[in-house]
Amino acid sequence: MKRACYFLILLFLATTANAQFELYPTNWWINMKWNKVEVLVRAAAQDIKTQNVTLAYPGVTLNKISKFKNPHYLVLELMISPVAKPGTVKIKIGETTADWPLKSRRTGNGRTFANGVTSADLVYLIMPDRFSNGDPSNDRVPGMRDQSLNRDSVFERHGGDLKGVQNHLDYLKDLGVTAIWLNPVIENDMPDRTEHGYAFTNHYKIDPRIGGAAAYKDLIDAAHLKGMKIIQDAVYNHTGLEHVLFRDQPDSTWFHRWPKFTQTNYKDQAIFDPHGAQIDKKIMQDGWFVPSMPDWDQSNPFVQNFLIQHALWCVEEFGIDGWRIDTYAYNDLNFMNRCNQALYDEYPRISIFGETWVHGVPNQSYFCQNNYSIPFKSNLQATTDFQLLFYGIIPAVNEPFGWTEGVNKVYTTLAQDFVYKDPTREVIFLDNHDLPRFYSVVNEDTAKYKLALAWLLTCRGIPQLYYGSEVLMEGTTSPNDGQVRKDFPGGWAGDKVNKFTAAGRTGKENILFNYIRTLANFRKRSSALTTGKLMQFAPYDGVYIYFRYDRQQTILCAMNTNKMPAAIALNRFAERLNGFQSARDVVTGQVTPLKDSLTLAPMSDRVLELTK
Amino acid sequence: MKRACYFLILLFLATTANAQFELYPTNWWINMKWNKVEVLVRAAAQDIKTQNVTLAYPGVTLNKISKFKNPHYLVLELMISPVAKPGTVKIKIGETTADWPLKSRRTGNGRTFANGVTSADLVYLIMPDRFSNGDPSNDRVPGMRDQSLNRDSVFERHGGDLKGVQNHLDYLKDLGVTAIWLNPVIENDMPDRTEHGYAFTNHYKIDPRIGGAAAYKDLIDAAHLKGMKIIQDAVYNHTGLEHVLFRDQPDSTWFHRWPKFTQTNYKDQAIFDPHGAQIDKKIMQDGWFVPSMPDWDQSNPFVQNFLIQHALWCVEEFGIDGWRIDTYAYNDLNFMNRCNQALYDEYPRISIFGETWVHGVPNQSYFCQNNYSIPFKSNLQATTDFQLLFYGIIPAVNEPFGWTEGVNKVYTTLAQDFVYKDPTREVIFLDNHDLPRFYSVVNEDTAKYKLALAWLLTCRGIPQLYYGSEVLMEGTTSPNDGQVRKDFPGGWAGDKVNKFTAAGRTGKENILFNYIRTLANFRKRSSALTTGKLMQFAPYDGVYIYFRYDRQQTILCAMNTNKMPAAIALNRFAERLNGFQSARDVVTGQVTPLKDSLTLAPMSDRVLELTK
Repeated sequence: MKRACYFLILLFLATTANAQFELYPTNWWINMKWNKVEVLVRAAAQDIKTQNVTLAYPGVTLNKISKFKNPHYLVLELMISPVAKPGTVKIKIGETTADWPLKSRRTGNGRTFANGVTSADLVYLIMPDRFSNGDPSNDRVPGMRDQSLNRDSVFERHGGDLKGVQNHLDYLKDLGVTAIWLNPVIENDMPDRTEHGYAFTNHYKIDPRIGGAAAYKDLIDAAHLKGMKIIQDAVYNHTGLEHVLFRDQPDSTWFHRWPKFTQTNYKDQAIFDPHGAQIDKKIMQDGWFVPSMPDWDQSNPFVQNFLIQHALWCVEEFGIDGWRIDTYAYNDLNFMNRCNQALYDEYPRISIFGETWVHGVPNQSYFCQNNYSIPFKSNLQATTDFQLLFYGIIPAVNEPFGWTEGVNKVYTTLAQDFVYKDPTREVIFLDNHDLPRFYSVVNEDTAKYKLALAWLLTCRGIPQLYYGSEVLMEGTTSPNDGQVRKDFPGGWAGDKVNKFTAAGRTGKENILFNYIRTLANFRKRSSALTTGKLMQFAPYDGVYIYFRYDRQQTILCAMNTNKMPAAIALNRFAERLNGFQSARDVVTGQVTPLKDSLTLAPMSDRVLELTK
Repeated sequence: MKRACYFLILLFLATTANAQFELYPTNWWINMKWNKVEVLVRAAAQDIKTQNVTLAYPGVTLNKISKFKNPHYLVLELMISPVAKPGTVKIKIGETTADWPLKSRRTGNGRTFANGVTSADLVYLIMPDRFSNGDPSNDRVPGMRDQSLNRDSVFERHGGDLKGVQNHLDYLKDLGVTAIWLNPVIENDMPDRTEHGYAFTNHYKIDPRIGGAAAYKDLIDAAHLKGMKIIQDAVYNHTGLEHVLFRDQPDSTWFHRWPKFTQTNYKDQAIFDPHGAQIDKKIMQDGWFVPSMPDWDQSNPFVQNFLIQHALWCVEEFGIDGWRIDTYAYNDLNFMNRCNQALYDEYPRISIFGETWVHGVPNQSYFCQNNYSIPFKSNLQATTDFQLLFYGIIPAVNEPFGWTEGVNKVYTTLAQDFVYKDPTREVIFLDNHDLPRFYSVVNEDTAKYKLALAWLLTCRGIPQLYYGSEVLMEGTTSPNDGQVRKDFPGGWAGDKVNKFTAAGRTGKENILFNYIRTLANFRKRSSALTTGKLMQFAPYDGVYIYFRYDRQQTILCAMNTNKMPAAIALNRFAERLNGFQSARDVVTGQVTPLKDSLTLAPMSDRVLELTK
């Protein structure tokens, strides 16, 4: 009894302590390469600046204590030596003790994690609030600022969650998807517009409205069990206005401050322009993205370590496989290199790609590993390839063919690949949560849509589909981007139709669904498409011919962007065709002998596996 | 008498010999770095393959004799040692002796030559047949294939010549021109379309219809006396169908041959595309430019040396200052590097820039010295900057302003300068002999024209004007490029008007003439414009502000591309404006205090020299 009481008191004290203090990161692991951890301690309403801090834990030493103008904060630099064992580090701050768990490294539960995505993958982008509501109990979470729940408004919460994603892993796997990129899952305790997730308010909390950490772990474990991967959406540039570190700032150096609100100029050019003005560069990188998102001052080493540790923590805690980094060009690029390197050091096979919504291959390639001998060298593996969208597949289907127009843009943009260190790592896509849905871009012309989808699944790079593209979801960013973030029909109990099932899809939708499914599943097993080379031929008269090939397999992709059929003489392609006798249409399965010419239907793409 | 007779016989023999043989190069010099000369010997109607060849000249040795299938040819490799003195090398071929002069190096007549152009220059491009007829006696040259002389036809000869250029050096100098680039001056003994000069028929003959070698030397000497430079137009890729080396080929390896006529595909992309097909690259570089211009096989070392020696010969023989290389991307680029290097080795200060009529900064920069770490590295100093024309100044004046449109294209294209090793060497221009005249591009809108001219004379790079731009010459390439190659009014005796004089120009023409003249002459003396840096600010609302500056001078250039006036708050430009009190308008001379804002007229450019 006495002993039980003693334990209860201890438990009470520990609880009290961690209630009094917030610790970021909330825990760490033994045997990490990142073994010097800066633990940010916050006491919500207490002066801890003058408190004595001690700890006694074998293998863990308190190297340094950093203090700030704001007495609510300390940063403790803890060194975790290789001899440290898992357990709970007791950190005594004044008279109170805070618990800081030190855990064993993630084993992956026998499965790999942090394994990265390659061009063998098909990434499927999901906005968790809008895909499927697997757990209606978390639709509204008491105490959170945004208490909206209204599927009729694109700006209010709809109730979708991680369980909803998990429930459809088989659907996605069947479609041919191998990796899921989720729009951010970190808590966004903001008053409104919380559906997108880009305004973090607590880096160490998965948003409870999508299921919190437990649902995230369940989803990732379930995905890994099925051989699928998870890409987390990282936001280093800014955070939410309601983030505690902004509401109660350690000092004036954690966020970019301006005499009056200053928005970024969104001018990526200012970063790399040898003639650029300093003020443009400063506004680009230090201006705020939007008024509700304070811009981290990433030159502050405490901010740097806070963000880096959060990235490492997420991979180790949840077992994610890759990172997509939001608004890459707006970050401090030297910091990004340091942050990326910390991830590469810890997880050598991890994937990291950055969003580069810019115009021009030089612009885009500046931000990733490239072949420029210039003072700044990015270590980012790849970017989201906006160039092959804006100056590639959109004009290919929507612009009349010309010397520099139409499908010639796909050809030219790919020819410029010589500037990238590894263009096969570029993430290619037709649309995403910020862009008009491609089905609307082509004005719901299924011929154009099929052509573009065939291109997406056969071009170089890592293809990314946006949720619902397979069931012809439409929407433009006019009047607002909410129109491209509609609910997946069937994701909610009681939905009138359920497009997750063939029966719930219209005939046209099933044709498109099966088209993607066939190509995506063929792709999975195709060495030429997943690891082979690309060879493209200069387009003529609106017809573009390219090959994916390796020693085992050769695939001929023939794209006719004309309104008329085309008959293509094949002798020009002897380099790749020699030795092959027949071609199997990957979509229809039909095998035909390879003759002198190939006939293409108007606005169509054929994907042909060649056989001897 | 006997002695005189003996000399006469010797002279007769010598004459006969050089009549029997053609020797290329026609001569060489002592003390050249290129001292191993391949002399191509041709006997028009004689088998010299089996003839004995000897020479006896102190310091000159016959290293090697190369023979070809065609017995009319030999190539003699002569080594010219440092001890060789000027004189006439007697080359005995069979029983006949050919004279091959070995001259002292050019002294430049006390003036420099091969000095190159820099951004301190203003280059003026002249098509010799269309500028001024200084010597009517050479308008038709008996024996040449093109006997046309008809100023009413844009495709026939008009009679312009080098003497006509020389007659107007003072006019050009007064305008502010410092260098003249002439369309090719080498003989074009073709049946028609000889006005442009790009179909060489004898590399060692200046076209007699423009005055031949004597007029060329006179012009260059006169230009040098006035401190002006001459840029020669080099055509390495192809030659004229009537070139003796094509009509009577040494063997089958001197020109690219195809089973049937094969034109180049004009696809520069095929050269650098990492995914490119071999056949596209081959057609691009080995296909013929047009049917009348055979494509040299530059992989043939004899062809290489023939072309390199011709380049060196021209510089040394005539004292030219720089090279513009035609159709650069169509050449064998490894050969071009070798050729350029031979010129750099001999003339370290020479300028070489190449024509790159391509679309895209990556495309263009691939062909010159750049910051790419890729297997092929060009040693070409710079290119003709088609990007700043097509994706710069044309949209700036003709396209409504937008996020990626209008003057934002100038800004973005310049921001991409980080890919060039030295963007200040790029040759910028508004038009040339192949393009619509800019005055027509802007639909004869003088406001747009003035804006573009101010840009041309203040942007980074080497500005190039096309003849007659200063007197508002117009013309588009429709229905044919002859429309942009009209005669300079006043260049011919008896012309109704003479626009070389103020009296001959209209009021509007004098306004434009004086505008260019003022800016160009200011530019000559301006350290900021000629050697200073460029700083550009992101454009807003159609207004683009940039500075040229160094320690001595700061120039503010303000471009308003709107149809409405603009008032620009100046505080954003403090980086460059701080410390300055007033501004002198370079065009009007008016000095005004620098206030908080600057007012710009609709579609206008102000060039303001700042003072403290």
